[in-house]
Amino acid sequence: MRLTLTPSTDPDAYPFSHRVRTRFAETDAMGVVHHAAYLPYLEEARVELLRHLGHPYTDLRSGGVDLVVLELFVQYRHPLHFDDQVDIGLVVGAVTRTAFQIAYLLRVADEVRATAVTVHGAVDAGGRARRLPDWFAGPQFTRP
Amino acid sequence: MRLTLTPSTDPDAYPFSHRVRTRFAETDAMGVVHHAAYLPYLEEARVELLRHLGHPYTDLRSGGVDLVVLELFVQYRHPLHFDDQVDIGLVVGAVTRTAFQIAYLLRVADEVRATAVTVHGAVDAGGRARRLPDWFAGPQFTRP
Amino acid sequence: MRLTLTPSTDPDAYPFSHRVRTRFAETDAMGVVHHAAYLPYLEEARVELLRHLGHPYTDLRSGGVDLVVLELFVQYRHPLHFDDQVDIGLVVGAVTRTAFQIAYLLRVADEVRATAVTVHGAVDAGGRARRLPDWFAGPQFTRP
Amino acid sequence: MRLTLTPSTDPDAYPFSHRVRTRFAETDAMGVVHHAAYLPYLEEARVELLRHLGHPYTDLRSGGVDLVVLELFVQYRHPLHFDDQVDIGLVVGAVTRTAFQIAYLLRVADEVRATAVTVHGAVDAGGRARRLPDWFAGPQFTRP
Repeated sequence: MRLTLTPSTDPDAYPFSHRVRTRFAETDAMGVVHHAAYLPYLEEARVELLRHLGHPYTDLRSGGVDLVVLELFVQYRHPLHFDDQVDIGLVVGAVTRTAFQIAYLLRVADEVRATAVTVHGAVDAGGRARRLPDWFAGPQFTRP
Repeated sequence: MRLTLTPSTDPDAYPFSHRVRTRFAETDAMGVVHHAAYLPYLEEARVELLRHLGHPYTDLRSGGVDLVVLELFVQYRHPLHFDDQVDIGLVVGAVTRTAFQIAYLLRVADEVRATAVTVHGAVDAGGRARRLPDWFAGPQFTRP
Repeated sequence: MRLTLTPSTDPDAYPFSHRVRTRFAETDAMGVVHHAAYLPYLEEARVELLRHLGHPYTDLRSGGVDLVVLELFVQYRHPLHFDDQVDIGLVVGAVTRTAFQIAYLLRVADEVRATAVTVHGAVDAGGRARRLPDWFAGPQFTRP
Repeated sequence: MRLTLTPSTDPDAYPFSHRVRTRFAETDAMGVVHHAAYLPYLEEARVELLRHLGHPYTDLRSGGVDLVVLELFVQYRHPLHFDDQVDIGLVVGAVTRTAFQIAYLLRVADEVRATAVTVHGAVDAGGRARRLPDWFAGPQFTRP
């Protein structure tokens, strides 16, 4: 699956939200959060979305389903700084039987800092593509 | 500047190449290199490209120019594993007076593992947009 | 200052505690949290201790005081796994006019996973040693 | 096994050496390399030591032996900066049937920046302690 979602900058477009606080270890010598540090923020937010939906990622993995990142897009609009509290909005889209996408909006005190999209595929323990569990297709997933 | 380059999977499209070896610290519990670890590889390759061109990034920075990441795209095609030697091809494109893009091809033993594009803008020490040094526009830069 | 504290495995020895949840990005190909990932956990817990004491680290830094790590010791007793909730106990000790130490106890569901000690020195923006603010010597700091 | 080695600041005490170049991603908002970034440097140097000895870590792992970090000590003497070339000296000591230690000296252009010690134990795929391969006890290992 190729990346097709266009992330909105309207917070209302994101039915689920998770807050992270940036760490000093994630800053760089420009005095801002390094661009690579955003990816674990998105991942942590995805993990919390799955927990919120009643399907923790640890359950998925012990059930033989891993979710790999197939594609990734980030637009860095304004930098994050140490100790910022970042509200990450998530919305799921483009769900098929084996893959789906998530769009993200990162804000600090209602100010947009970044948008992002990730594309995920389901694989088994050997890394082969497999079907997503049925609940991925439900309205609960795409509208948490 | 918005991301416009489409990275080729043909190694000949990349005039500069840099090799990195993956670290154990960069793997994850799926047994492969974590998707966030690719970004420092791209950055290390950019730093080596600038050095190769005779303009080390440390010189740029002491001259008051920082290069920030504005946009980022990665397509993960086949996983990287611990101890892989990854050849990263780079090609510069879409150079304007204040921004430019780089496309990347990541291969292990001639096998494509990932492609990527980054968009960069020049900023001063205060984070304000500024002009790129003149040599960025030269043919040496876009064809190293 | 050389590291002198011996971290206790008794939770009651730690007057302040902070909980972190491990990220998937922090695991490695052995299926456990990589040993380097513990250091940002300790740092995050120190930052929360300073906030709890009414002296956020961002205030210290804007007041011209940085706290550098001089020495570090970690004993890894039992591994951490993805999605673990880690309770990090902290206790300050060996405070002098320019340096101090913190001992740490890391537990998951009351089970000891690691102990650690960090030694910190105060420096100014240029990296030169300087005096700690007076409140560092107070009983409030050493017994939060 | 508890940490017992005291790392020397004499380069001649270290029979094996490996050079790394620091990455921008590894710096922090103090303008220096973050203290947690040193641990992957030590790990990369250990991996190169094993390769140099004719026993790549990938072979060890496919043979059912993992080497876990049991204890860790770092003394940060002078900071590392972006783009520094760091020469890491390694010497093995205190080898038993199931564990060993490595001392490290980190220098930039012959100037000492840090010293460190790691303690390692052999475990099987399930994380249980097991014997080290016989060559760990040989003079070749302790004096590469």
